[in-house]
Amino acid sequence: MVLMLSVLCIRAQQADSVMIKHVFDNALQSEISYRQLEGLCDVAPGRLAGLPAMDTAMQYMLRIMKTMPFDSVYVQPCMVRQWLPGRDTAWYISNNKGKIPLTVDVLGGSVPTPESGIKAPVIIFKSIDDMKKAVPSSIKGKIVYFNRPMNQTYYNAFRAYGENSSMRVLGADEASKLGAVAVLVRSINTVTDDFPHTGIMRYKTTDTKIPAFAISTKDALELDSVLLKFPETNVYLHSTCKELPEIQQGNVIGEIRGMTHPERIITIGGHLDSWYNSAGAHDDGGGCVQSLEVARLFFETGYKPQNTLRVVMFIDEEMDQRGGKKYAEEAKTKNEKHIFAMESDHGMALPTGFSVDSAALVKIQTWKYLLEPYGFNKIEKGFGGVDISFLKELGVPLCGLVTDSQRYFEYHHSGNDTFDKIVRRELQLGAAGMAALIYLVDKYGL
Amino acid sequence: MVLMLSVLCIRAQQADSVMIKHVFDNALQSEISYRQLEGLCDVAPGRLAGLPAMDTAMQYMLRIMKTMPFDSVYVQPCMVRQWLPGRDTAWYISNNKGKIPLTVDVLGGSVPTPESGIKAPVIIFKSIDDMKKAVPSSIKGKIVYFNRPMNQTYYNAFRAYGENSSMRVLGADEASKLGAVAVLVRSINTVTDDFPHTGIMRYKTTDTKIPAFAISTKDALELDSVLLKFPETNVYLHSTCKELPEIQQGNVIGEIRGMTHPERIITIGGHLDSWYNSAGAHDDGGGCVQSLEVARLFFETGYKPQNTLRVVMFIDEEMDQRGGKKYAEEAKTKNEKHIFAMESDHGMALPTGFSVDSAALVKIQTWKYLLEPYGFNKIEKGFGGVDISFLKELGVPLCGLVTDSQRYFEYHHSGNDTFDKIVRRELQLGAAGMAALIYLVDKYGL
Repeated sequence: MVLMLSVLCIRAQQADSVMIKHVFDNALQSEISYRQLEGLCDVAPGRLAGLPAMDTAMQYMLRIMKTMPFDSVYVQPCMVRQWLPGRDTAWYISNNKGKIPLTVDVLGGSVPTPESGIKAPVIIFKSIDDMKKAVPSSIKGKIVYFNRPMNQTYYNAFRAYGENSSMRVLGADEASKLGAVAVLVRSINTVTDDFPHTGIMRYKTTDTKIPAFAISTKDALELDSVLLKFPETNVYLHSTCKELPEIQQGNVIGEIRGMTHPERIITIGGHLDSWYNSAGAHDDGGGCVQSLEVARLFFETGYKPQNTLRVVMFIDEEMDQRGGKKYAEEAKTKNEKHIFAMESDHGMALPTGFSVDSAALVKIQTWKYLLEPYGFNKIEKGFGGVDISFLKELGVPLCGLVTDSQRYFEYHHSGNDTFDKIVRRELQLGAAGMAALIYLVDKYGL
Repeated sequence: MVLMLSVLCIRAQQADSVMIKHVFDNALQSEISYRQLEGLCDVAPGRLAGLPAMDTAMQYMLRIMKTMPFDSVYVQPCMVRQWLPGRDTAWYISNNKGKIPLTVDVLGGSVPTPESGIKAPVIIFKSIDDMKKAVPSSIKGKIVYFNRPMNQTYYNAFRAYGENSSMRVLGADEASKLGAVAVLVRSINTVTDDFPHTGIMRYKTTDTKIPAFAISTKDALELDSVLLKFPETNVYLHSTCKELPEIQQGNVIGEIRGMTHPERIITIGGHLDSWYNSAGAHDDGGGCVQSLEVARLFFETGYKPQNTLRVVMFIDEEMDQRGGKKYAEEAKTKNEKHIFAMESDHGMALPTGFSVDSAALVKIQTWKYLLEPYGFNKIEKGFGGVDISFLKELGVPLCGLVTDSQRYFEYHHSGNDTFDKIVRRELQLGAAGMAALIYLVDKYGL
């Protein structure tokens, strides 16, 4: 009996290994999701939630999904902010050369400048704490310039991002209380180039809202050197961004009904929105087409999930996570039974493993031997993803695809995040790994 | 005594770990070698041995190296072939649309076509063996078209390259014996795009030399589909490449004299030549600046090697490996004592480990714990590198930097291998890993 069980067990392992090889073979030979991503970046760059490009992106994805044998394809409606970027201009005044342009992008959610712009001297800080230690009179009437390079010494570049992002998110909020008139943030970028990297900023504690901008790393260095020589240099900032009333857009969803347990749901997704200045190839159009590719790989290999599989392209990850919140809210209202959720929003570089937020990690690690041949060497405790994080209170095990981080912050939230930075094989390895793990969770449970 | 020894041992380990962290910290914060590579790609693209661009590249590197505190910087002269690429043209004749251009690059070492070009019908094969099974009369007077896509299912893309490269190297040699008039080879490329990927070809067994070309993957697909519909379609091929007498160029070398054992030599290098159609950023300008970076990291951290360290930028890896052969030949003639050689020529992607060709592997693996925090997870038996391979007969342990292979064949031997495909942090992780391992070999021996 023991022998028979272990024979059955070995046969199941072999079947899994064969199925997973089929999945990887198919994915590595296919250009379908790669071309879908190219199309998305072509027709709907700058698809921030609330913008017309987001409608275009939703329509583009719906059209593709409706050609696939999903049991249903639909939009889960959701209200989103309608913050509109405008035209951003900046320059500094050189003693002998007049106005020298600076490359900036307004931060997401910022108020605009007055129509005439803001012209003021600049004061540099390396952190919010650093600023709080300064004499308030030294800040009053000035543009606060958070000029802190990313710490390049960390192997995991997300760690340096974590250290720097508070200046972007809360810098203006804090600086306004000290009398600053605007905030300029050095782009969170691992290289020196001309791309400003934007991202969300929030007015959390202040009513005096001042505008905030990201400056490219190249111009950050230049401005830094100018200010060393001429500390009184004035900088001019102008943005025509504005906020209009909320509008309805939504999450784009495709569903494969489970064969055995249609009431049990596995969610797999990415977010469809991108920053306004970006084609959003790595962040996170790639995560969307990878999630769709998981479904395609199941259709192609003939695998019929036991549980219902939902491919979700979440809206509004970048601003207010309305899509993720809406999805979890409806799951709760409808008393849905969610057994697992996975997200890909870590950049489309070489996959290195998965991060799992809960005790499900132990079971998932037992499958590591099936994924290691494809470079998934690290299955570790960690974050699942922003959009699926709202499912946490329903007790759903959450899991994120982990990819190498070395290149990511060259692209992130900038005009440099374009389709040509996507490596087809890396994109496909990620999608195939996701499909393999979803297959195992679907078949064996957690 | 045992306790004292183990305390000393732990202290040494800590010192190594601190030294290696200094090396990585410095490398990850520096743009120096990245900008050196940008300069090299700018001033000397297409630096095939024998071409004027190669002289430019040698001068460029010498100038940089002479600003560094090497004990000596010199050129080791070496005769190289002077095979000159020319202008390549190709088209097929469409029944209703006339001449449709095809994107081709002549293979390295090919004879030119006659001045009037070659116009002939095409016969497709998937391999040399496949061709040998055909009726010879079906080949006579035709252009043999080796149309075999890379096998995309291998995780390690070099494996697929190995399977396909024989058609490029020996296809014309074999086809000429069967009466073919020219050879067209589908580019060895993992994506569908407009770049032909060239590479060496050899006339090994035939005196009837026929020209050979690489066709871009996009046009390979098009030609394939045209030939399916119209098998009699004629293709026109033209190249003005030519071969002139050999000339003298050489290996560019920088030497740091060993503190304790100046007579013992550690070699670290890449190859300075690139294909004529390529800026040679990944293959292998990157390997050259990484090798230089190892020296810079030693200068910067104040580490003085016990043994003599030679940074060697080999010439002519792509055609005849004259640089590597010359270097080994002189080592033998001069009775030099070489204790270790390392090469970086695997593409500048994310480093994943080292491959070691000999019993030295065992000792090197004991240092794995020092390299793993930086992503060097695999230290395995394997190939060192083409240029250093000629040192093997002197019994030198050879070692190669191993990087991830997913992107490499998008660039390899094509116009797509440009500086913008280089990720600074990946380049620097490679250089720092090389410096760390050289430091350990230098300090502890093998």
